Amino acid sequence: MIDQPRYTIGVDFGTESGRAVLVDVTDGREVGIEVEPYRNGVIDVHLPAPDEDVVLGPDWALQDPEDYLQTFRGAVRRLVAGSGVDPAQVIGIGIDFTACTMLPTTGDGTPLCFLDEFRRNPHAWVKLWKHHAAQPEADDINRVARELDQPWLERYGGKISSEWFFPKALQIVREAPEVYRAADRLLEAADWVVWQLTDRETRNNCTAGYKALWSADEGFPEPRFFEALEPGFGTVVDDKLSRTVVPIGGRAGGLSEQAARWTGLLPGTAVAIANVDAHVSVPAATVTEPGTLVAIMGTSICHVVLADSAPAIDGMCGVVDNGVVPGYFGYEAGQAAVGDLFAWFVDEAVPPRYHTLTQSRGVSLHEVLGEEAARLRPGESGLLALDWWNGNRSVLVDADLSGVLVGMTLATTAPEIYRALIESTAFGTRVIIDTFEGGGVAVDQVVACGGLPDRNPLLMQIYADVTGRSWRVAASSQTPALGSAMFASVAAGSDAGGHATIEDAARAMAHLRAETYEPDPSNRRVYDALYAEYVRLHDLFGRGEDPVLKTLKRLRLESIEGSAVVADAASR
Amino acid sequence: MIDQPRYTIGVDFGTESGRAVLVDVTDGREVGIEVEPYRNGVIDVHLPAPDEDVVLGPDWALQDPEDYLQTFRGAVRRLVAGSGVDPAQVIGIGIDFTACTMLPTTGDGTPLCFLDEFRRNPHAWVKLWKHHAAQPEADDINRVARELDQPWLERYGGKISSEWFFPKALQIVREAPEVYRAADRLLEAADWVVWQLTDRETRNNCTAGYKALWSADEGFPEPRFFEALEPGFGTVVDDKLSRTVVPIGGRAGGLSEQAARWTGLLPGTAVAIANVDAHVSVPAATVTEPGTLVAIMGTSICHVVLADSAPAIDGMCGVVDNGVVPGYFGYEAGQAAVGDLFAWFVDEAVPPRYHTLTQSRGVSLHEVLGEEAARLRPGESGLLALDWWNGNRSVLVDADLSGVLVGMTLATTAPEIYRALIESTAFGTRVIIDTFEGGGVAVDQVVACGGLPDRNPLLMQIYADVTGRSWRVAASSQTPALGSAMFASVAAGSDAGGHATIEDAARAMAHLRAETYEPDPSNRRVYDALYAEYVRLHDLFGRGEDPVLKTLKRLRLESIEGSAVVADAASR
Repeated sequence: MIDQPRYTIGVDFGTESGRAVLVDVTDGREVGIEVEPYRNGVIDVHLPAPDEDVVLGPDWALQDPEDYLQTFRGAVRRLVAGSGVDPAQVIGIGIDFTACTMLPTTGDGTPLCFLDEFRRNPHAWVKLWKHHAAQPEADDINRVARELDQPWLERYGGKISSEWFFPKALQIVREAPEVYRAADRLLEAADWVVWQLTDRETRNNCTAGYKALWSADEGFPEPRFFEALEPGFGTVVDDKLSRTVVPIGGRAGGLSEQAARWTGLLPGTAVAIANVDAHVSVPAATVTEPGTLVAIMGTSICHVVLADSAPAIDGMCGVVDNGVVPGYFGYEAGQAAVGDLFAWFVDEAVPPRYHTLTQSRGVSLHEVLGEEAARLRPGESGLLALDWWNGNRSVLVDADLSGVLVGMTLATTAPEIYRALIESTAFGTRVIIDTFEGGGVAVDQVVACGGLPDRNPLLMQIYADVTGRSWRVAASSQTPALGSAMFASVAAGSDAGGHATIEDAARAMAHLRAETYEPDPSNRRVYDALYAEYVRLHDLFGRGEDPVLKTLKRLRLESIEGSAVVADAASR
Repeated sequence: MIDQPRYTIGVDFGTESGRAVLVDVTDGREVGIEVEPYRNGVIDVHLPAPDEDVVLGPDWALQDPEDYLQTFRGAVRRLVAGSGVDPAQVIGIGIDFTACTMLPTTGDGTPLCFLDEFRRNPHAWVKLWKHHAAQPEADDINRVARELDQPWLERYGGKISSEWFFPKALQIVREAPEVYRAADRLLEAADWVVWQLTDRETRNNCTAGYKALWSADEGFPEPRFFEALEPGFGTVVDDKLSRTVVPIGGRAGGLSEQAARWTGLLPGTAVAIANVDAHVSVPAATVTEPGTLVAIMGTSICHVVLADSAPAIDGMCGVVDNGVVPGYFGYEAGQAAVGDLFAWFVDEAVPPRYHTLTQSRGVSLHEVLGEEAARLRPGESGLLALDWWNGNRSVLVDADLSGVLVGMTLATTAPEIYRALIESTAFGTRVIIDTFEGGGVAVDQVVACGGLPDRNPLLMQIYADVTGRSWRVAASSQTPALGSAMFASVAAGSDAGGHATIEDAARAMAHLRAETYEPDPSNRRVYDALYAEYVRLHDLFGRGEDPVLKTLKRLRLESIEGSAVVADAASR
């Protein structure tokens, strides 16, 4: 049987659906794919039937753990059954997840929202990564961390996000102490689904490191820090988490009898330690060494780069030892709106005559605008934007910032603005690259993956011109699922026909497209001049010199909520 | 016959057409109106047939004097013939014109472009107010005026525009010395049409004062100033202009036999001294005293206010003694894009779903957006704009500035941006009012006229809220033509059944609409906060602290014209 092909399955748990891919471990060929849209999707208005009367507050975003299980019973089962592959040839399964996406469970892993007692309590459900209602808790954590001079703060660029683990946990203990008390475990959904596959709780070091303030050297923050946030919260790690954190790249266990029935795979099939969608894409984009940044480009951009050491770098999302590829420190940075920004533009700011062209020519509005934008030379529009329509993740870590567009005339056109918005996101990426390099982390070249590079050669060329680096594109359009399948091959191991290391897996299974985007020297000169202006506006509006964006946000809140409420919020 | 009604005719020479209105001098009732579209309109690509092969440069804008004469032969003639009024009851005719709109003629007033010898030379044609190709000449004039410490510079806020008389004249002498030599006269089209009506050359003090650097006390700039601009140009005033300048409000002469044949009026009918469209609107908006600013609101805004004295005020377009209403100093200021800005937005940046509503509801896009914008509270959008899509006329006098929009999020909508643009133009008006008041010129209230107030109660309320002043609206939608008819009634005089003074004419013939827009105190508080942010951005980007808009313009020119050409322009 050793001469037969061997396969692994990668399952990517996204925001709206789960996606399973069957991959040949020899060459990374993607043999089949199945998608399972989540029945309850993103729960952000009210709880699902029959509890629609339970209405959620603004900025809430929940999910239903049942939808994750259904991905195994549906998409994975269909994938195995439909592929014609003997389940004995499927030697491993790996998953990646959005993060931090976390939930409270009982000691046996039952989500509290599965219990009648807690079903109508929103805090018993999964808090999705983009649940932003824990911003007051994030603000408190940042403040107390500075007051108590917490050493871990530096690893996260000096500031943590409301999307992370402890703001969400703190919101539970404050707003639903009965849920907090009943929760024997608080954990990442990533680790929870692996628990469901293996019948064994494990905690992966990627989410622990990037989202839960953990490091291999220092563990979690000290109890007195948590106690300072909220009386009784001091023992959260020992009561609800685990100090046993397992590095990615390992084997979480073997597939349980029950999970084998769900999926149609064999019991005992290797299950990889859980991973995060962005990070797992890095080896799937062929990168397993320092010097090459991976840009996972979709609605937002996540930037990951490996390094031999871990200098403190301002405004990064985090750095975790062995967090991406074992043996290296993995740095993460991000831009909050990229594809989302372009989508906003085509939905909200493009006049009908361009829409008409899409119909007559049968192409998308992005293509129509992109074609006209491609005819412009750098600088020709006279426009410059700050790409902060959804705040700034790196390097300013400030969700209250907003978009800026300057240079409009009565002759300004939609394709000109479209190009300026693309350029602004490229400038944002260059700020991140410059910050990495300024801190001592080399970025010699870039590999892009995700949905955006596929559809947009203009965008790729602009990114190359603006950053002055060559950009390649990952061959797979499913890098998260491919990455999970690669880690599954490592969990299975070379004896079973898999791979000994993620480097081996990358060499065999990950590929780049043929085309390379090289910076054009004359475009670079213009973009260097524009970038100098971008940086000046970035610092002006982003570092407090002119606080107009903050003031506008405050006036907006005052206008929406009434001045009394806001006076309260401002003083908080 | 003294008991029969008396009428006058006002003719407003606009950018695209001439418009004649027949008005009852007793009460200002507009009895009839006729419009004459100019056959050759704005000539900005090439000369009219048969000389289409003569192509114009960028920023050129010419007109054909024949189109002005046709307005008398067409519109005025139809108006008189169609009204059923006995020509003997029409006691006067007055005209107003765009300015500075100027042309070269022979000694008998024949336009050089009417001569075969010069017909194919663009410099022989009328240079329209928006001919912007004399910017290098304006730059030279401003530089030399500062070097020679010219006292008149202060009256124009320290800087003159390329639209004015001497930049255009200087362009002729430099680029077409043969035209300059052949021109016995260089004069405003306003004065030229009055010459055609009366067979007598007169020069009005309004265009001389606002556009040709003249004042009653100091006359024109000294010859050594003109000579410093260009050898031989020192005698321009004595060679091509006239030192006899007549105040508006007077009688230029009686209608000639020929002009009587053109119009169907009686020979000898009183013809008023020529006037300017914006300035002539002031008494037509009932304003003949200090304290009330008149805002002529259309594609741009022209602001005029009267004062008893003439303190120097930074960034105004000009101040002229007796320039608007005899007995007062008339100040003029301006915003370069207002209606034009809103038109740009609806043409270039509004998605199809709002256009669809216009069809289903049978209303304009402005109305659709205005209704949704009206539901927003001040500050609610979180947006703020600098209204510089066509540069800044007052108080920065800088055509190289461009538009700025800040505060966008992924939830920003078209009606929110539309409202922010309206607000930005109101903030621009408030800067002008604050500058007037800071300089000692009172602005207690405002009367608006022109096309914009008609269609836009939301805009009027925002202007009242932002400026903290009550706004009224002129009753007539034809204030320039009405104002010209009023000045015609003064030219005719009270003995002929007209009026003795423009004040008398205004009392009888000019009216306000019933409605008043009063500032709302709670809106004012929010707008005061937003205005503070506007002023900060205005000074930041407009006064050189952050030169990003200038840099973008430079990069744009470099991109369009090639770096060699522009390096030359920048050093000039």
